[in-house]
Amino acid sequence: MAEEKVSSTGEEDSQVVNPWEVTAKDGGKIDYDKLIEQFGCQRLGADLVQRVERLTGRPAHVFLRRGVFFAHRDFDEILDLYERGEKFYLYTGRGPSSEALHLGHLIPFMFTKYLQDAFKVPLVIQLTDDEKCMWKNISVEDSKRLARENARDIIACGFDVTRTFIFSDFNYLGGKFYENMVKVANCVTFNKVVGIFGFTREDHIGKISFPPVQAVPSFPSSFPHLFADKNNKVNDKLRCLIPCAIDQDPYFRMTRDVAPRIGYQKPSLIESTFFPALQGENGKMSASDPNSAIYVTDSPKDIKNKDSIEKHRKLGANLEVDIPVKYLSFFLDDDAELEHIKEEYGSGRMLTGQVKARLIEVLSELVERHRRGRALVTDEMVDAFMAVRPLPFMFS
Amino acid sequence: MAEEKVSSTGEEDSQVVNPWEVTAKDGGKIDYDKLIEQFGCQRLGADLVQRVERLTGRPAHVFLRRGVFFAHRDFDEILDLYERGEKFYLYTGRGPSSEALHLGHLIPFMFTKYLQDAFKVPLVIQLTDDEKCMWKNISVEDSKRLARENARDIIACGFDVTRTFIFSDFNYLGGKFYENMVKVANCVTFNKVVGIFGFTREDHIGKISFPPVQAVPSFPSSFPHLFADKNNKVNDKLRCLIPCAIDQDPYFRMTRDVAPRIGYQKPSLIESTFFPALQGENGKMSASDPNSAIYVTDSPKDIKNKDSIEKHRKLGANLEVDIPVKYLSFFLDDDAELEHIKEEYGSGRMLTGQVKARLIEVLSELVERHRRGRALVTDEMVDAFMAVRPLPFMFS
Repeated sequence: MAEEKVSSTGEEDSQVVNPWEVTAKDGGKIDYDKLIEQFGCQRLGADLVQRVERLTGRPAHVFLRRGVFFAHRDFDEILDLYERGEKFYLYTGRGPSSEALHLGHLIPFMFTKYLQDAFKVPLVIQLTDDEKCMWKNISVEDSKRLARENARDIIACGFDVTRTFIFSDFNYLGGKFYENMVKVANCVTFNKVVGIFGFTREDHIGKISFPPVQAVPSFPSSFPHLFADKNNKVNDKLRCLIPCAIDQDPYFRMTRDVAPRIGYQKPSLIESTFFPALQGENGKMSASDPNSAIYVTDSPKDIKNKDSIEKHRKLGANLEVDIPVKYLSFFLDDDAELEHIKEEYGSGRMLTGQVKARLIEVLSELVERHRRGRALVTDEMVDAFMAVRPLPFMFS
Repeated sequence: MAEEKVSSTGEEDSQVVNPWEVTAKDGGKIDYDKLIEQFGCQRLGADLVQRVERLTGRPAHVFLRRGVFFAHRDFDEILDLYERGEKFYLYTGRGPSSEALHLGHLIPFMFTKYLQDAFKVPLVIQLTDDEKCMWKNISVEDSKRLARENARDIIACGFDVTRTFIFSDFNYLGGKFYENMVKVANCVTFNKVVGIFGFTREDHIGKISFPPVQAVPSFPSSFPHLFADKNNKVNDKLRCLIPCAIDQDPYFRMTRDVAPRIGYQKPSLIESTFFPALQGENGKMSASDPNSAIYVTDSPKDIKNKDSIEKHRKLGANLEVDIPVKYLSFFLDDDAELEHIKEEYGSGRMLTGQVKARLIEVLSELVERHRRGRALVTDEMVDAFMAVRPLPFMFS
């Protein structure tokens, strides 16, 4: 199975992409074409981007225009049903392993916020505090605290409280959500999770029992307070779209495999590349390595001083690997300006220092805006987003 | 490890005792001495029975006097703390795999009711509807319905609603209970559950993730509504005593192994033999084989007609394997009468027909009393026992 090649660190293929490890082959770049082939997802082409623009009546998000979200599974079916006037919901999430988010963490949330605004749909956001407790040896209390801290950063991205339910596993797990976990778990053998996730016999059973926890928010019946009608019935045909980085694909391959066997719809996915570390594109920005990342708590001075940017001066103007230009392509919304910078820089007329100065400007503005937003997020707002409550206007 | 010998169907030892299979070696009797040795528990001797009588000021239950509860783990420590005036709580449970309970199912509940009355302590009763959904391929809805039906039979045993919390996993799982599940799961590898429970790589991950669900009711912090004080703190030193059949021992061996590693007390156990099937003592009465069991819904005529009793006429008066005498030793409270029957029957002065007639009388009375009790259990009473609520007088 293709799955096994990817999750194992086999001889055949040293590129490793799973929810816990992202490493390119021989220190090179992640081969995204290969990932698409191995995972069996589809490339998100210009035709779909144009269709999104047409259906939503607004320009595509910079992450769509620039191919940051580059792959999908049945995203076209979501657009089909939207075109027919039907509804769907969004599901994304985060494992709260650090106090502050870095820019890489913000990408799915910035994009999800755009999707919510463009399609006017409800959104569930899962904070997997239980996962971090199981993988990172963080105490239950610390993990719950980090989940709540991270919720502030997520809320600061501008989500609409009338359409958004944020939950932590430790707080929400139970009831219909747990019933769905049992249904999923009944369909997945230990051998299967070994194939998908690379677990071993020495792994503890917390890890082995976790994949259903991340699977079931794909099913509307896991959220009866949102999706049950007056008679307590949930329409299991309601589709789910999951924006996420492609390292989460293994969870949803498993989910899509199981869904029809338990009478549920497969979730659709729209998947991003990784946001490259400051050190280069052979991995992803990681919360475990502070020097690899720019945090939303960094000051403009911090950003300027992240010495790793400095170190990469030597890479010069190879636009394929040049991190400042890469970062600008994620965050500089102005297509014309980006094109201009690329041309000038590629030809040598613009110096690294100038590109970096512009990048620092762009990032500082982004981080500053986020910080101002976060400062406005009160405890009451966190409680409001995380309350188990109906959202009567979530589809309007 | 001794565990592996027991859970596997190895060449060395063909006696299999685990939560899903109880089979004696070569169709013979269960060797309980061997179980005690293999599991590493202690024999419950006459000294402890006398101590129970002294401490509670009442005669020991027939199941204690006759050695039905024959093994324990640290039951003496529970008596020590009780003698010092300290408190503990009881935990037992049931997997709701059938509509009606049979006599074998009633044994732990009849005994637990005696313990509750004698020691005046709180009791939690777990209905593992999730387990039955995972092992027996019963739908979530059916499993939840069976749990509620079984709760009626349990309540009919006469538990005190001011000291008893009955819960089903599908209804209760979440919150602190789930936090404890994660803590336990983090300490148990796949290899470990293979050793204890005999799981294989082809088993689905629902089974593999279940043992922590049955483990955590051993810890008071799983029940904050019962055991948390005004400041939301639970005294983790509060001890738990688990009355159960010895086939459940593997779950609690695992629990006792993990408890000190997560800062919790090991639960104590008091363990029973199996209630023999009508066909003889090589297994246990099983809900999956209606002919092996007398149900609490059987009429006196049903009981008389259970043809398996008839079939065993041929076993005559071998008191070691004679099922009617064995059953009388479980349910005929009068020691003098039982002794008399054994003597007369063993010497041939009393015929099988007479012993069986007395047994049918005893069982009919028991079943009739249970049925009358069950008929009085209203939906409101089930709701009351299963409500997540404080029990302010549970220790008085």
